[in-house]
Amino acid sequence: MSARGFDLFLGLDFGTESVRALVVDGCGRVAGSASAPYPHGQIVAGSATAQARFDQPLPRSWALQDPDDWLDAVVAAVRAAGRETDLGRVVSIGVDFTSCTVVPARRDGTPLSRTVWMDHPHAWPKLWKHHGAGPQADRLTALAVARDEPWLARYGGIIGLEWFFPKVLEVIEQDPEVAAATEVWLEGGDWLVWQLSGAPSWGGEREADHLIRSTCQAGYKGLWSRADGFPSRDYLDSADPALGAAAADKLPGCFLAPGQRAGSLVPEAAVRLGLTPGIAVSTAVIDAHAGVPGAGVSDVGTLVMVLGTSGCHMLMAEEEHLVPGVAGVVGDGILPGFFGYETGQAAVGDAFEWVRRLCGAPAHAELEHAARAVASGADGLCAVDWFNGCRTPLMDGGLRGALLGLDLQHGPAHLYRAVLEASACGVAWIVDTLRDGGAPIERFVATGGLPRENALFLEILASVLGAPIEVPPVVEGPAMGAAVLGALASGRFISAEDAIASMVGSRSALPPARVVPPDLVSPEQARGLRRRYGEAVSLCSDSPSVRGAHQ
Amino acid sequence: MSARGFDLFLGLDFGTESVRALVVDGCGRVAGSASAPYPHGQIVAGSATAQARFDQPLPRSWALQDPDDWLDAVVAAVRAAGRETDLGRVVSIGVDFTSCTVVPARRDGTPLSRTVWMDHPHAWPKLWKHHGAGPQADRLTALAVARDEPWLARYGGIIGLEWFFPKVLEVIEQDPEVAAATEVWLEGGDWLVWQLSGAPSWGGEREADHLIRSTCQAGYKGLWSRADGFPSRDYLDSADPALGAAAADKLPGCFLAPGQRAGSLVPEAAVRLGLTPGIAVSTAVIDAHAGVPGAGVSDVGTLVMVLGTSGCHMLMAEEEHLVPGVAGVVGDGILPGFFGYETGQAAVGDAFEWVRRLCGAPAHAELEHAARAVASGADGLCAVDWFNGCRTPLMDGGLRGALLGLDLQHGPAHLYRAVLEASACGVAWIVDTLRDGGAPIERFVATGGLPRENALFLEILASVLGAPIEVPPVVEGPAMGAAVLGALASGRFISAEDAIASMVGSRSALPPARVVPPDLVSPEQARGLRRRYGEAVSLCSDSPSVRGAHQ
Repeated sequence: MSARGFDLFLGLDFGTESVRALVVDGCGRVAGSASAPYPHGQIVAGSATAQARFDQPLPRSWALQDPDDWLDAVVAAVRAAGRETDLGRVVSIGVDFTSCTVVPARRDGTPLSRTVWMDHPHAWPKLWKHHGAGPQADRLTALAVARDEPWLARYGGIIGLEWFFPKVLEVIEQDPEVAAATEVWLEGGDWLVWQLSGAPSWGGEREADHLIRSTCQAGYKGLWSRADGFPSRDYLDSADPALGAAAADKLPGCFLAPGQRAGSLVPEAAVRLGLTPGIAVSTAVIDAHAGVPGAGVSDVGTLVMVLGTSGCHMLMAEEEHLVPGVAGVVGDGILPGFFGYETGQAAVGDAFEWVRRLCGAPAHAELEHAARAVASGADGLCAVDWFNGCRTPLMDGGLRGALLGLDLQHGPAHLYRAVLEASACGVAWIVDTLRDGGAPIERFVATGGLPRENALFLEILASVLGAPIEVPPVVEGPAMGAAVLGALASGRFISAEDAIASMVGSRSALPPARVVPPDLVSPEQARGLRRRYGEAVSLCSDSPSVRGAHQ
Repeated sequence: MSARGFDLFLGLDFGTESVRALVVDGCGRVAGSASAPYPHGQIVAGSATAQARFDQPLPRSWALQDPDDWLDAVVAAVRAAGRETDLGRVVSIGVDFTSCTVVPARRDGTPLSRTVWMDHPHAWPKLWKHHGAGPQADRLTALAVARDEPWLARYGGIIGLEWFFPKVLEVIEQDPEVAAATEVWLEGGDWLVWQLSGAPSWGGEREADHLIRSTCQAGYKGLWSRADGFPSRDYLDSADPALGAAAADKLPGCFLAPGQRAGSLVPEAAVRLGLTPGIAVSTAVIDAHAGVPGAGVSDVGTLVMVLGTSGCHMLMAEEEHLVPGVAGVVGDGILPGFFGYETGQAAVGDAFEWVRRLCGAPAHAELEHAARAVASGADGLCAVDWFNGCRTPLMDGGLRGALLGLDLQHGPAHLYRAVLEASACGVAWIVDTLRDGGAPIERFVATGGLPRENALFLEILASVLGAPIEVPPVVEGPAMGAAVLGALASGRFISAEDAIASMVGSRSALPPARVVPPDLVSPEQARGLRRRYGEAVSLCSDSPSVRGAHQ
């Protein structure tokens, strides 16, 4: 490979709080890396931005972002990474992004939040975790069930409240003026790729009709498939004629898969980023899904667990199985040639952080140390990990977490251990769901921030799964995955497998994966944890008491 | 009344952590007041005393005390109170005490923990909240049910794990040597009265056969009644012949009611306390029950809620109703002439303190202030208040607390508000249970420490009860009640009603009760709280997940 050691590949990982720019060579060696936070972070109830900007306080279920933050942060991150390497050698950009993050925009790419509509909260991008569209999701699901829509089985029978059409319908219903002023609805990742590759709003000349949408985002969050496209006009009209009209008129563009070249970096963007104009820009990928190539996985039967604030667990298989409770089975959804299965937990690191914040502990390391001394089973305390809803397998964003078996002797260490155990049992439940649905799993790979930050969690997880977990050496898995997909888009590798093997896998310059053995607690203790979690889950899934105030 | 303004009356309130000495005159005016902590506090798993004293760590369910602490603390408290007044004018002592706190002793009154058995944990008094006798309580209950024991209905059909015979049986089974070395089993309050009125171990000459036991403690915690005495030898033998033998041989003494004179203060004790030898010592009363006269209540139909670390809610009625779930209906159990109903919550202030400690908040005032700003319903968070088991009406010490509906936005203020709301709903549930069982309730009086310390809790409680709550001006309700009962034992009043009216009620020198109106939240919100608590309670009462690790 002529690329090795010479050309460099840039991966951009747009997360919930910040963007990471990772520059690597063709053997996976890191040449430069930096991250930059979004200046306004998450715009939620009580945040300074929300208070300064809007007349009314935001509902507690809301989470918005400022798209200009994405641009400002990516410039800062790439330029910071450039202080460590020669950005002039970068030949491609890969982009991963949170999803489903929905941007209402003008046809020239200007986000509505930058226009006269800026004092309308609905004009701002709704972050993936925004939970304001629950009623819309419920209605769209009920309608699809009633009409026996054929695509519904691909999504486990439920349309998630975080997904694309519920979020669009929420705006249509709650702020029709903003909905009418929106000319293009699109995913944040697709919007970003459009900005890099020619949106007029960032100095390019590529009108909306030629923007590139990702099959990954559209397939997992937009009810889209290559064969059938989006849901029928008839279905969407029956929900709301304005939704049918929006789908017909306001979803312009063409579909490409992650790793396919979406376009070339336009000069204006290149100048701001300090990169060479004309280099390849890959089609966007969902951040978690970038973790699969980023973890060096290109084969079937390996569950790639991307563990961060939330958990996203992905599997590739030769066959399509419609598994109840699995939110998306998408052809070519992760890598070309395989069916990609996406499952998830809505709060993992977020739940650990909730305990830390609640207890006023200065750092996770202290809680982890104390929780390690607590016996398996947390001295009778059992948690349910639905602090932000249950994604897989119940697919119910309205469910809420629980702590059961509390006594006066329980302290922060018990809570922490109980929430770690619950999160591990939540993964095991997903594994059972996939296996029961016919999707084989033979190997476990963990990536994302948590595997390095929280050793105890990984040890509990391996014990509960009853199998070793491999932790690849790549520190920034999604960013590495984005870089790999960008390299693929640059044409320097003959296939995804080739790019992955060369940059992250067996032929790369990286050290072997660390293996976490399943021996922290005994198999019997692990069974006890799972049995108790199962009881707690069946208890809580039936009860209105475990739903939020707004349910 | 010649007593007014001249004679003084001493009330001793032996609580969980400390003893309070209150000196009042015949009009209820406080002449002196002081408290002193028990030097070794509660001896529990991990406490310094337990670690220094015993080979093995104590189980988490255990709670012991050192009886010498009671003596040392009462001397310190009385002498401190004496710095404010002339102890030479004190003509009586009333004693209230935690219950069921069980002391194994020698026939001369020496507690076994002061003997060669001191390195045996079972030789130490088991504090009321000690939960080691769960299996024994279950077995004694099952046996009583199987044999259709007639007395069981008086206790709501269940023998509590905190009660007298389960605790004795626990020692018999787990440390037969200590059980064999025990010559007298008795309540802490009876032991203390014995010490004051002549136990040889504290300088007196009153052998065990002449010690006085309280009808209150025996009736509520010892399955005793005036008509039938203790359970039959046959029943106790069927549980364990050693238990039958202990009941026959190791429960010497006579029974008197609280307010009856148990004896006179012996010279040795008088010297140590700085009091006059020969003054009246009243028969002991359970601390919570002392709160009824202490709150100025001498009539039927008033629920006296003693709110402290736990909650004890007492009611007097003309008739005996055997109410399922009500742990004790005892004739003359509170005041002579009425049936006394005792109900309770195992953790109230303890649960609030658990939240404070968990969250590392410096003081309750801050949490209360923050929780006041949280909407009714705690933004979707619902608690079950069984942090130390459910006393009334489920009578199940093995149940544990829960937090349901948790989301990532919930913080300390939400937890605090949710636990206050749950505790209030727990009281309302008890009120319904009593009313449904035929015991009328027309008025609510709150006493104990919490009504003064936690205004928000009282306001929530009044709203949930849908009725005003009167908070009598007496700061130390149980200690005042003990003083009233002591005064009664001194012969200075013609009846309990007379003593109560004169010292705490309409004829006293005290200001009128403060009234907390039921208007913090709307009746509809209050119904919402109760509905949700009811759902959570029925959810949790069925589930093994809500039991501790040892269940």
